[in-house]
Amino acid sequence: MEKQLVNQRIRRLKESMGDLDAVVASSLENTYYFSGSHIMTIRAIPDRLALLLVPKDGDPTFLVCVIEETLVRKESAIQDVRPYVEFAENPVDVLGALLKERGLSDGAIGFESRHISAMYRERLSQTAPKAKWLPVEHVLGRIRAIKAKSEIETLRRGGEVTERAIIDSWESARVGDTERMLAVMMSNAMLSRGLGQISFLCMGAGSHCGDAHPVPGPRKLGTGDLIRCDVGGLYDRYQTDVARTGVVGKPSPKQVRRYKAIYEAQCRVIQAMKPGTPASKLWHLAAETVKSYDYPFDAPHIGHSIGIGLHEEPMIQPYNEMTLEENMVFYVEPFIRTGPRDAYHVEDLVRVTPDGGVLLTDSEGLRESLYVL
Amino acid sequence: MEKQLVNQRIRRLKESMGDLDAVVASSLENTYYFSGSHIMTIRAIPDRLALLLVPKDGDPTFLVCVIEETLVRKESAIQDVRPYVEFAENPVDVLGALLKERGLSDGAIGFESRHISAMYRERLSQTAPKAKWLPVEHVLGRIRAIKAKSEIETLRRGGEVTERAIIDSWESARVGDTERMLAVMMSNAMLSRGLGQISFLCMGAGSHCGDAHPVPGPRKLGTGDLIRCDVGGLYDRYQTDVARTGVVGKPSPKQVRRYKAIYEAQCRVIQAMKPGTPASKLWHLAAETVKSYDYPFDAPHIGHSIGIGLHEEPMIQPYNEMTLEENMVFYVEPFIRTGPRDAYHVEDLVRVTPDGGVLLTDSEGLRESLYVL
Repeated sequence: MEKQLVNQRIRRLKESMGDLDAVVASSLENTYYFSGSHIMTIRAIPDRLALLLVPKDGDPTFLVCVIEETLVRKESAIQDVRPYVEFAENPVDVLGALLKERGLSDGAIGFESRHISAMYRERLSQTAPKAKWLPVEHVLGRIRAIKAKSEIETLRRGGEVTERAIIDSWESARVGDTERMLAVMMSNAMLSRGLGQISFLCMGAGSHCGDAHPVPGPRKLGTGDLIRCDVGGLYDRYQTDVARTGVVGKPSPKQVRRYKAIYEAQCRVIQAMKPGTPASKLWHLAAETVKSYDYPFDAPHIGHSIGIGLHEEPMIQPYNEMTLEENMVFYVEPFIRTGPRDAYHVEDLVRVTPDGGVLLTDSEGLRESLYVL
Repeated sequence: MEKQLVNQRIRRLKESMGDLDAVVASSLENTYYFSGSHIMTIRAIPDRLALLLVPKDGDPTFLVCVIEETLVRKESAIQDVRPYVEFAENPVDVLGALLKERGLSDGAIGFESRHISAMYRERLSQTAPKAKWLPVEHVLGRIRAIKAKSEIETLRRGGEVTERAIIDSWESARVGDTERMLAVMMSNAMLSRGLGQISFLCMGAGSHCGDAHPVPGPRKLGTGDLIRCDVGGLYDRYQTDVARTGVVGKPSPKQVRRYKAIYEAQCRVIQAMKPGTPASKLWHLAAETVKSYDYPFDAPHIGHSIGIGLHEEPMIQPYNEMTLEENMVFYVEPFIRTGPRDAYHVEDLVRVTPDGGVLLTDSEGLRESLYVL
């Protein structure tokens, strides 16, 4: 990542700090966004903290486990990188000493209360008892929610690769293939087409179709089976997340009508995605559309912003009054389940513009009806 | 998972509770181990809690997001499964109401302080202000650390698949292939051979080799390059984690000697892995061995227990006085870095027995020297 971009982001963060004296970023999302260094162990080994201190006045300092030092010095735009030795030192105590050094021991410090564990939170109070620790994820999230042009292009390409990988595997699937066989084909296609990593791969057919996140197993595809998948990976460190529903053989009129309900819901939501629209309104729009078909609708959310993380704010859920802004991007994903073998899901990437949402996936228009395998 | 096994585990947990009135498990590791239901969104969507309440007296209750209800009812051995509606209800408040119902509002409740976020920890105090919330991960971890025969067999098979996938791809690699091409081959092999998911795939050659967790990129393999990988996935929900080092073409005498240092360190550690040995002693044994070759040694740890999670206790690090017990299993992984293009890593699965560690991977004896690509 270019240093200039990171420096712009740090500047924006400083301008957004309000009464805070400093912010400590710790999640993979925020440390990557504000440093340029992608430390995958933040998720894989949660106890191994990476702590990016951004004071309102002065330069940021990045505390990282010594194991990650080489990578961080290569990738990071932060000049002051300080390694700590895992197990010999508690990273929170190292942060405490740094706050003292910077004259911030009794400051108001923003921290990621949804990422820092209760164990480390307690240690923060012990190591810097006079500091005021305040949740700051909403500030960081709001900055990350508005995407730069380059981020939108990365997200678009990632979505395209993911979608194409689903279609690749479904195109070559035959009755008698197992879910596992399809999953391996899909994975191969995703990696070969350029995803750096597969984050999740849910797929189920027939009696598995009704599970929310089915793990592909030895079940064989049979004629008339619904098949549903929800898959995502990392494309240049940005998350993808595409869902599709298909049917093995000719779809029944009931299947066609059920799929139509969620497709129509998705289209109406996308149309309404203009700056100023509250997220809650979009959820209700999807609910109304599905209910107009006389199907029950109880999905807790129907979409989410996306970026370095998977579910980012704003979530499209009925209680969220956050309003959309231009160049937010969302995966919009209405879902209905009408029985244990019978669930429908469609999920696509959308950019918010003054004229409504612009679809960034499905360039071939394949999602307009149930995919026929 | 068989209900009987889960019931045994719940019994063991109740016996280990000491002065606690109940335990709330929340991590993927502990909810899967003590319920039989593998809820992948616990990691992918951290705000969406699944809370397994196990009272000392009485039956457990599993609070899960309504989206996961179908899966949990299918897989879980827990009878009392209660869905909550995400966004409409805060899962911690639902837990508060459950504690009241069970007469536990002023009880001593064990919780996972390394998994529950600071945000939810604060809410716990608000929703059940009279309860005493105490960290309990050490109790849960100690139960999980001793593996059943079936778990050891799962871990062994997973390790074998992972190792074989590395060799598959290295066997067919050629000068001029990119890291990415190798990574795709390796991924294909892992998934085709039975891993359900790839958790991480670090691989670097030449100038990437010195990074701790290199992401495979467009770099081409050149003669004389070291290549190093550290990869893991899920085999039947249990984690794998294998590292290997190779060289493109004939290794230099220096490369041979450096690899020998970590291989010898690994062998000596494995031999010493008997019940009663403190984890710290194993780290020092590895350090001594490497230092006897006059190489610097500063790895924070040289191995870790493994199971449903990746780094489980005991960690093999210099400050850990936890002692080994029979049927603990570890990945043992000495690592040295002697320059930016020059790092060596070998990682294998070992079971603790009264006669010392028994190696569960490397059935072909390939790790005895640098792999020649």
